[in-house]
Amino acid sequence: MNQASNPASASVLAPTAEVEHQRARFPDGLALDCGAVLAPVDVAYRTYGTLNAARSNAVLVCHALTGDQYLAETQPVTGKPGWWEAIVGPGKPIDTDRYFVICSNVLGGCMGTTGPREEMPGEGRPWGTDFPSVTIRDMVRTQKLLVEHLGIARLLAVVGGSMGGMQVLEWAATFPEMVFAAAPIATAAHHSAQNIAFDEVGRAAIQADPDWRGGRYFAEPGLVPAKGLSVARMVAHITYLSEQALTRKFGRRLRGASALTFLEDVFEVESYLRHQGSTFVRRFDANSYLTITRAMDYFDLAAEHGGDLSAAFRGTSTRFFVASFTSDWLFPTEESRTLVRALNQAAANVSFVEITSDKGHDAFLLHEPEFHAALGGFLKGAAAKLGA
Amino acid sequence: MNQASNPASASVLAPTAEVEHQRARFPDGLALDCGAVLAPVDVAYRTYGTLNAARSNAVLVCHALTGDQYLAETQPVTGKPGWWEAIVGPGKPIDTDRYFVICSNVLGGCMGTTGPREEMPGEGRPWGTDFPSVTIRDMVRTQKLLVEHLGIARLLAVVGGSMGGMQVLEWAATFPEMVFAAAPIATAAHHSAQNIAFDEVGRAAIQADPDWRGGRYFAEPGLVPAKGLSVARMVAHITYLSEQALTRKFGRRLRGASALTFLEDVFEVESYLRHQGSTFVRRFDANSYLTITRAMDYFDLAAEHGGDLSAAFRGTSTRFFVASFTSDWLFPTEESRTLVRALNQAAANVSFVEITSDKGHDAFLLHEPEFHAALGGFLKGAAAKLGA
Repeated sequence: MNQASNPASASVLAPTAEVEHQRARFPDGLALDCGAVLAPVDVAYRTYGTLNAARSNAVLVCHALTGDQYLAETQPVTGKPGWWEAIVGPGKPIDTDRYFVICSNVLGGCMGTTGPREEMPGEGRPWGTDFPSVTIRDMVRTQKLLVEHLGIARLLAVVGGSMGGMQVLEWAATFPEMVFAAAPIATAAHHSAQNIAFDEVGRAAIQADPDWRGGRYFAEPGLVPAKGLSVARMVAHITYLSEQALTRKFGRRLRGASALTFLEDVFEVESYLRHQGSTFVRRFDANSYLTITRAMDYFDLAAEHGGDLSAAFRGTSTRFFVASFTSDWLFPTEESRTLVRALNQAAANVSFVEITSDKGHDAFLLHEPEFHAALGGFLKGAAAKLGA
Repeated sequence: MNQASNPASASVLAPTAEVEHQRARFPDGLALDCGAVLAPVDVAYRTYGTLNAARSNAVLVCHALTGDQYLAETQPVTGKPGWWEAIVGPGKPIDTDRYFVICSNVLGGCMGTTGPREEMPGEGRPWGTDFPSVTIRDMVRTQKLLVEHLGIARLLAVVGGSMGGMQVLEWAATFPEMVFAAAPIATAAHHSAQNIAFDEVGRAAIQADPDWRGGRYFAEPGLVPAKGLSVARMVAHITYLSEQALTRKFGRRLRGASALTFLEDVFEVESYLRHQGSTFVRRFDANSYLTITRAMDYFDLAAEHGGDLSAAFRGTSTRFFVASFTSDWLFPTEESRTLVRALNQAAANVSFVEITSDKGHDAFLLHEPEFHAALGGFLKGAAAKLGA
């Protein structure tokens, strides 16, 4: 894969403690929705493929809650494949032989972009819970800095699932002239009360962990609120899977013998969830989790436009591809239909596909050929229309 | 209300630290499914109404996970109304003017029946996590001791929702000659992988709390794993409500001003959930929560009968009333249909009603006139048939 060269205006930062992320620094920073000004802002990112001479083949991919910029290559902390290698790569739906693919760690994240784990200017310690509240729109404004820094005036497409889809919608609503095509996938124009409630359980679990220390766990080297963050991950993970997917994976199988004891995790599903929780804490920062889930919970695109979702897209010339999955109960199809109705009301160019899948919300990350064909076709069509 | 007199064979125990529960003691105790013998066994219970001369009007109500024996009167710890006063009382569907209603705290519970909070014989301390694993069938065997102790050879009906419904099914399968009618409500013949997973989150949250101390929090007076138990209650509470019920109650309303901060619980739904969590810890024991959720997770009536659910009811003469609620996603209607199909296969007398409600699993506890009419009618019909 080819990486974009770093124009002179951005300095490459010193390595973080763990991994040297590719970063761009924006000294003037950003005015946030909460009123604070964050400066400087660092953006950690990766690119794949080559930007064409017309600079018309750039595809920005926005990651979900616990994703990162390592879209289509080995994640350097975990050593595992990139989170969307099913979709992004040579000859794949987001074809790195044809498109210049950009992915950056979100504002508030913990893989190199400015966030609670990074140093608070002048304080000689991480931001921790002093990090200001950020919104999905703040994340998108940060991505816009990077896109402009890469010399791109208009993106061929912005693509993302789940919280990534929220960013896609915010891009299309806030910077429509920069978005030729938009693919919000397995997402919604706002978080439901149930989604907020599940997030709140996760946050309460983190804050209940005495090792969280009011957010100041960084004061003791190596200390993290591992148990609380693990519980947060466990509950979230359930919401990513359908009942069918859980049953198929584990059913009610007991792990080992039929021992009747409540101190051991004897069901396979328990063992799996506890494993999910414990591996997660090695790669994700608890204060980032608080920051980003809160951003998702605040997201309400209709509220940003006087309560009228269609007003977010009025006059748009962006082409939309909306996709949902039948067994996704975190972002059910009905949420996508609401979105499509608003886009129709705004006279937008929109196609909608509901994919039959029993894999739940996670389906957007997995092997779903019908979805891949539809998304790939949409991007090819958009590229042809743009002459990219 | 009238209480049943305590026959001489049962001694009334000394008050617990907090509340003097009405109890019966069974010195010979019980052989449990796990192989252990638990002796003595104390059963805390309440009765309402009067047992008729023929002893043919007794209705046993089985409570759910966090319920107790205070069915139709003020709960002495919380001072709140009994948990099923909507259903049980004079002139109500479970009519205490007509029936002699019995409700006992489940084995492993924390309202006076033998469980982790009660004293471990000879140890001078609570059982804590030394309390043996119990099953739904063990709970039912314990109730049978009480029913026989009250001089009742056959129950007019056994009624219960959620985990109470599991007990109803186990009663009908294990002691069919003692059950003239059975009403399993909003329940299933086994816990699904998703239900087990949610329970596991709750258990992990309790065990993650350092105040749990490996189950030995009782060693320090007044100490309880309040934060962990609170998180467990929060996640469970979400599963008891439908998305519609959550939205109707709270929508996305912010509490107070539109402050953008992630340290405060600014959404009303968060505030509500945190309140639910914190009040729960005052009345419920964490080790009981571990014990009882595990019993629910183990429950698998088909597995107890060679994998054939209908075999659990073969030859039964019990009359069944199965009820589910449309928006219940913890025990969806499909689970009740599975149950009804098995009962039909066993040639049982069964009626089934799916109640249209948007209140989620909790609907069985709430004002649902159609459900109340159906349940009341079923019991009246059963009483008439029995000549009670």
